[in-house]
Amino acid sequence: MYRSHNCGELRASDIAKKVTLAGWVQKSRDKGFMIWVDLRDRYGITQLIFDEERTSKGMMQQAQKLGREFVVQVEGEVIKRASKNPNIPTGDIEILVSKLEILNTAKLPPFTIEDETDGGEELRMQYRYLDIRRNPVKDNLIFRHKVTQEVRNYLSKNDFIEVETPYLIKSTPEGARDFVVPSRMNEGQFYALPQSPQTFKQLLMVGGMDKYFQIVKCFRDEDLRADRQPEFTQIDCEMAFVEQEDILNTFEGLTRHLIKEIHGVEIADFPRMTFDEAMKRYGNDKPDIRFGMEFGELNGVAQHKDFNVFNSAELVVGIAVPGGNSYSRKDIDKLIDWVKRPQVGALGMVYVRCNDDGTYKSSVDKFYDQDDLAKWAEATNAKAGDLICVLSGNTNKVRAQLSALRMELAEQLGLRKSNEFAPLWVIDFPLLEWDEDTQRYHAMHHPFTSPKPGQIELLDTNPGDVKANAYDLVLNGNEIGGGSIRIHDKETQSLMFDHLGFTKKEAKAQFGFLMNAFEFGAPPHGGIAFGLDRLVAILGGQETIRDFIAFPKNNSGRDVMIDAPAPIDDDQLKELSLKLNLKS
Amino acid sequence: MYRSHNCGELRASDIAKKVTLAGWVQKSRDKGFMIWVDLRDRYGITQLIFDEERTSKGMMQQAQKLGREFVVQVEGEVIKRASKNPNIPTGDIEILVSKLEILNTAKLPPFTIEDETDGGEELRMQYRYLDIRRNPVKDNLIFRHKVTQEVRNYLSKNDFIEVETPYLIKSTPEGARDFVVPSRMNEGQFYALPQSPQTFKQLLMVGGMDKYFQIVKCFRDEDLRADRQPEFTQIDCEMAFVEQEDILNTFEGLTRHLIKEIHGVEIADFPRMTFDEAMKRYGNDKPDIRFGMEFGELNGVAQHKDFNVFNSAELVVGIAVPGGNSYSRKDIDKLIDWVKRPQVGALGMVYVRCNDDGTYKSSVDKFYDQDDLAKWAEATNAKAGDLICVLSGNTNKVRAQLSALRMELAEQLGLRKSNEFAPLWVIDFPLLEWDEDTQRYHAMHHPFTSPKPGQIELLDTNPGDVKANAYDLVLNGNEIGGGSIRIHDKETQSLMFDHLGFTKKEAKAQFGFLMNAFEFGAPPHGGIAFGLDRLVAILGGQETIRDFIAFPKNNSGRDVMIDAPAPIDDDQLKELSLKLNLKS
Repeated sequence: MYRSHNCGELRASDIAKKVTLAGWVQKSRDKGFMIWVDLRDRYGITQLIFDEERTSKGMMQQAQKLGREFVVQVEGEVIKRASKNPNIPTGDIEILVSKLEILNTAKLPPFTIEDETDGGEELRMQYRYLDIRRNPVKDNLIFRHKVTQEVRNYLSKNDFIEVETPYLIKSTPEGARDFVVPSRMNEGQFYALPQSPQTFKQLLMVGGMDKYFQIVKCFRDEDLRADRQPEFTQIDCEMAFVEQEDILNTFEGLTRHLIKEIHGVEIADFPRMTFDEAMKRYGNDKPDIRFGMEFGELNGVAQHKDFNVFNSAELVVGIAVPGGNSYSRKDIDKLIDWVKRPQVGALGMVYVRCNDDGTYKSSVDKFYDQDDLAKWAEATNAKAGDLICVLSGNTNKVRAQLSALRMELAEQLGLRKSNEFAPLWVIDFPLLEWDEDTQRYHAMHHPFTSPKPGQIELLDTNPGDVKANAYDLVLNGNEIGGGSIRIHDKETQSLMFDHLGFTKKEAKAQFGFLMNAFEFGAPPHGGIAFGLDRLVAILGGQETIRDFIAFPKNNSGRDVMIDAPAPIDDDQLKELSLKLNLKS
Repeated sequence: MYRSHNCGELRASDIAKKVTLAGWVQKSRDKGFMIWVDLRDRYGITQLIFDEERTSKGMMQQAQKLGREFVVQVEGEVIKRASKNPNIPTGDIEILVSKLEILNTAKLPPFTIEDETDGGEELRMQYRYLDIRRNPVKDNLIFRHKVTQEVRNYLSKNDFIEVETPYLIKSTPEGARDFVVPSRMNEGQFYALPQSPQTFKQLLMVGGMDKYFQIVKCFRDEDLRADRQPEFTQIDCEMAFVEQEDILNTFEGLTRHLIKEIHGVEIADFPRMTFDEAMKRYGNDKPDIRFGMEFGELNGVAQHKDFNVFNSAELVVGIAVPGGNSYSRKDIDKLIDWVKRPQVGALGMVYVRCNDDGTYKSSVDKFYDQDDLAKWAEATNAKAGDLICVLSGNTNKVRAQLSALRMELAEQLGLRKSNEFAPLWVIDFPLLEWDEDTQRYHAMHHPFTSPKPGQIELLDTNPGDVKANAYDLVLNGNEIGGGSIRIHDKETQSLMFDHLGFTKKEAKAQFGFLMNAFEFGAPPHGGIAFGLDRLVAILGGQETIRDFIAFPKNNSGRDVMIDAPAPIDDDQLKELSLKLNLKS
């Protein structure tokens, strides 16, 4: 036994107890005649005291040598602290040390082990094992554990069975790129790492498991955007004999439970919004509804004058920025520059100041009179004191641009409050989306999503109009989960593959086992998958997933701590029947 | 809502309720005027009834067409069953169907969906989704879920934090072969899939997480022996500031909790045995102690006569088979043939019949008299009516052979009772073991295991004698867990790598990050890992792990259901900067 107590649990009621503690030296203060040491472990900090009246000379000398992050074990008596520290739970006591053992020394860490560290991202990742000693990272990992335990307990109580599906599966060209794993025992052949256990969970439904879940790693070999990881964790769920309504209710229950358990906040029924409505009102299929600034479409009240920019636009649309009339000309120019950045891509921005006296002053006064602008204010729900920002152009593009501006402004205005939780179901997603690169339709969700009843016929005539039994759960402007009711008969699945450009042969080679399975009594089924990394981050009031992953990879997919990936030796390659074929 | 109730929950108290059920047609009996259908789902079976008095003609015709494994939804009234079925919980009632909808048809399954199926292993694996509908497989998967939930809840309650470690790590040549994953973004470089999260969990201890666990998939590219899987699941655990005693107590607690929760059996303190003792008494480092038949070493009482086979042997050792004197000459010949099979490899077997009258009759009466044989009986603890089986030869080999015979006999005698649980700690394992192939010492556990205090000096002179702070948890003759107290200082770790034949450069390239970490204040730490697949199988009273894995691979590492691994296309290879280099 290295310790009788941890460093976070001793209180005034423990005074006079003989205790043994072990931990790290957080810091020490040496007054010569007296030395205080903060001893830290996962559970807290306890102050140790050495003083020349009560401590032997030898031990004083030993204590003087303690450096930051040394690992020590001490025996001593819990005594009342002269000057209490109300900021920590152990602040009423300290340990008068009678025995000190250095269990390990430590080199000076490359950054400070403090809540606010002086270490940059790169350095922290390289020494992640030291970074994890810091409260913010440690607490995030503990928080993640608690969330996953809650998820597992909730789903288990609701008759869900966690089933482990395989990691070494088969590569399929649909969707993102697979990571592949060469098989030594099957020469020239490869496994793939799963992008999700999608087909397996469907097979479990065919197999009668009824309610399945799994918290599971998934893999995508994508060019990494900020805050994406090549390996990520999903809460993967599937139910049999369900309609969309059953899924929404079940996982609304889970989400409500989590928010209640974690934040003590009761949330009423989650609002629902169709994809079309979300695009129209927020320009975005994952709107943050913690705040307003809804889109006002202005085509009807802005295309009747000689302003060609608007007249030639597919969509003219604006938002009202609360209190925005107080912005200086310079502030507004900054906003215009912001929307013109290549990442946003607008060509310009028209604005209207809503003066306190009810008059309007716009950047297009040459074309529009007060009556026109009043109608704009009405459409965007602008009040006196607001600023209306108007963009125009191609519908999809301008919606994305104005949505970006809306989020940016909300951020600036402090409207995205991390302690507020506004979930939203977005439903009725399109089944297919047009891909400019390949000049064909792709499954918006995945090829197993079922079309809305009665819309299958549209696949031949207006494929882009077909809606799917697909839904996303959005929380504070982030998609935290998405799913669908699946196709469960071979004919429809086969038709879908046709429409997605699979030949019969390809469909059979890649998904033959699933279509076979559908012939042996597949029940209606559907499911959802949550991105655990993001869910945990958002529940933790943050948006960067990397801080909630113990050992994340950087934007090149590298683990800079262990220095992976790395070359392997020729023998290993040869055993795998492979040769390098380097481009350079 | 496809159903108001599941197929396992209706009881006599529900009579007269209108209900909706959905499930699979298990079987139907058609008497012409009356049709009974067993409707099945995960939760049970409910009988449906159609009869010509109460059911419309159209529905009777529809019901007649229901084939096995059709998926149907029915509405109807719960009525009292004329002839009750006491074998199923719903046996008091049946459903008088008023509405029948066929949700999906089914082709005739390739094997019967019954507890005892007519399908062979290969066929069942190919149609695993149908196999999972069978109670034995379904129940095993549900059992596995319950065990993992219990493990998670127990460890969480004991302050362990589940931390996810990465799957895309770095290849290391030590131990079994890694599966590797080519990196597209880092040309010519590879990730490896973890054989275990060993180094990461140690880094988490350096990072102050204090108590870690993870239920995690691990990967080994080994030539598969029976009942091995290329991907398998571990309950991986690590604790800081612990000695061996702390680990044993903690995980004895976990195991005791599981056996109690699952089987209602209270188990006292687990016995402990050193590796040396286990080898001496059972010829095996994972002895099944549910029964006796302990080894009796006979060198002292069998090497004093003219029997050269024994005189030239390093070890002469026997076991007493309870009641074995009743074996016929033919039975004994069979045993002799059994030990001479190449899988066992003995050259022959000497036996001694212990007659009821206290006399002995042996196959070596030419050399040994009754006094000699009485001493053998004493050494093997044989009683009148037993049979003593004696093997001789090289110590390691003969122990393995006699251990195999002991297990075989126990199996034949019904001594390996699946409802009995006999855990055992085997401790004080050797640190190193000699490998004939490479002519050098390998780490018996892994290179991070610490030697017993004070034995480090022996590394230079008698490396094979050094004992490790390593332990295995054995349950009913199976190793279910193993672990060690780790090295936590750079010097010792570096010394270990030297002794294992790593050059300084290799050690740095592969484990530099760990040795660096040890310089920044590594606490003493240790841990254990359980093989979940085997643990669950043994707790379930079985020994074949495949039956507790949803989608297992066969002995060639193939998933015959999805037909993986499989070739990938040239573009994919090119993107990965690889070329095939086929041997044939």
